[in-house]
Amino acid sequence: MTLISISDIDKAHSKIEQRITRTPLITNESINSLTNAKVYFKLENLQQTGSFKIRGASHKISLLSEEQKDKGVVAYSSGNHGQAVACASSDHHINATIVMPKNAPKIKLENTKSYGAQIIQYDPLKENREKIGLDIAAKSNKTLIKPYDDLDIICGQGTVGKEIAEQLQDENITPDIYLCCCGGGGLIAGSSFYLKNKFSNIKNYSVEPEGFNDTQLSLQKKRIIPNATSSHSICDALLAPQPGKISFAINKLTLEGGLVVSDLEVKKTIKEIAESLKLMTEPGGAVAAAAVLSKKIDIEGKTIVVMLSGGNIDYDFFLKIIKENYE
Amino acid sequence: MTLISISDIDKAHSKIEQRITRTPLITNESINSLTNAKVYFKLENLQQTGSFKIRGASHKISLLSEEQKDKGVVAYSSGNHGQAVACASSDHHINATIVMPKNAPKIKLENTKSYGAQIIQYDPLKENREKIGLDIAAKSNKTLIKPYDDLDIICGQGTVGKEIAEQLQDENITPDIYLCCCGGGGLIAGSSFYLKNKFSNIKNYSVEPEGFNDTQLSLQKKRIIPNATSSHSICDALLAPQPGKISFAINKLTLEGGLVVSDLEVKKTIKEIAESLKLMTEPGGAVAAAAVLSKKIDIEGKTIVVMLSGGNIDYDFFLKIIKENYE
Repeated sequence: MTLISISDIDKAHSKIEQRITRTPLITNESINSLTNAKVYFKLENLQQTGSFKIRGASHKISLLSEEQKDKGVVAYSSGNHGQAVACASSDHHINATIVMPKNAPKIKLENTKSYGAQIIQYDPLKENREKIGLDIAAKSNKTLIKPYDDLDIICGQGTVGKEIAEQLQDENITPDIYLCCCGGGGLIAGSSFYLKNKFSNIKNYSVEPEGFNDTQLSLQKKRIIPNATSSHSICDALLAPQPGKISFAINKLTLEGGLVVSDLEVKKTIKEIAESLKLMTEPGGAVAAAAVLSKKIDIEGKTIVVMLSGGNIDYDFFLKIIKENYE
Repeated sequence: MTLISISDIDKAHSKIEQRITRTPLITNESINSLTNAKVYFKLENLQQTGSFKIRGASHKISLLSEEQKDKGVVAYSSGNHGQAVACASSDHHINATIVMPKNAPKIKLENTKSYGAQIIQYDPLKENREKIGLDIAAKSNKTLIKPYDDLDIICGQGTVGKEIAEQLQDENITPDIYLCCCGGGGLIAGSSFYLKNKFSNIKNYSVEPEGFNDTQLSLQKKRIIPNATSSHSICDALLAPQPGKISFAINKLTLEGGLVVSDLEVKKTIKEIAESLKLMTEPGGAVAAAAVLSKKIDIEGKTIVVMLSGGNIDYDFFLKIIKENYE
């Protein structure tokens, strides 16, 4: 079964390319010598709204009918998807309602508000965000903009894979490995699919935080496995309860397997990226880099593409992380 | 009198391009709407060693004779040039001695040490770094690698202008204005010269911190004017006492004039860049952006290239800046 094609992603890209930033793909000597590998970072933390999510959201919203646009949209999100939907809605003068957890990073809450969206906060320990979102959509005839389990969203996120492929081809680089964070699996589905098509020998791996390794387990069992318990992780962007149906249907065909990193490994990585690359990354955005720096797979001498997916981290938390001594 | 040519910079670029990062040139919607302009940031804070200085240092050191290499090099620097000379020396297995002020940012001291250089610290209020550097060079037959007043250094720094020109041409963009930080004037000399040659209508401006506006004054008077008093500024990278002779000879031909920003404007800018671009910049690296955000010249509707020249800022200070409320 073919759910998406390269041309779907190419089309999505031509729809949104004026709206998004073609983010840099950079390598850094300190990181390369630390890892004995050639590591290329895709800087989606420099993307508009501070994460890749604007790609999918602006693609999806650009496809709505005039009637749907009049009624408005609703989204549930730990923050980055919410910001992106709010921002893309504001572009199209659409009303947006965003359902966000009470404990979302302040920076994500404030940014979402700044785009004029209505925010509804919920308690993630007691309430189900999907249900709240669906209820609002049903009552008000608003269109629900899902965070990942939607082909239009996946094709939108996949445009980052197109950019990576072009940036690598411009430099005559053939990648061995692609590492990408994975929450519900939309970003990795679109981007890995694109890269696998352009570089047939590439090995794609999902990277998840400890306790939220539902995609790793699902890939092992070849069926969707939810996270066993409600663990805790600092990676607020990657806490989806289980892989999306559509995203997993793609991922099970294009991924080699899944990797897992600890909160401590993520913190060390945020510090290393600040030191070597002068970049602010959020925990969920740094897991793929953490897998490289913690050498979760054999990367010796290899060419690796690492997704840095977002930079929306509260300043206090960022400082706490970069000031800590992890020796 | 023609001191440098485009082909000198092109040659320097082909000598060092394997050593340096072709840093991104990016634009950002939040900044563009804040300024009502189209602003392109050249991200030299993502450069190897965290600033543009590796361009000039690696060019200069690549030109040394075997005998000079055997004897080693000495440099005086508030930090970024020192790091760069230490790093380029380590590439060529050359002994490097770096004269640094006692109050240099810790991150710059530590990075310089990490490349294996010998550090000599001095008291900037009582001692003259140039004299210390010259004494060491004379006594030990080491080659002094000047920070800016040297044609090979200027051509090395000028390679960033070549990259900017190519990156703009790739996107069919014609810039109206180029804003670049200015200490001794080496970076702006090489890069403005290149840009003026490629885009004849571009207006190049130096940006300096308050109290250290020697280039602004020198441009006004058409001769070298030193800074009147020993002021204080957070922009540790830009505290040269007066323009370099060679750098000023170039700058007086290619610059429209000089702009000045306050420490407060620089702090607000560092915070804005962290918020909008997720980038860590050091004070001296952010002055050109500060001139844009504080609208020191008419930028309405214009296309502006802004140099972000470095990111080596101590974490405590970075956090203090981004946590402050400047409303």
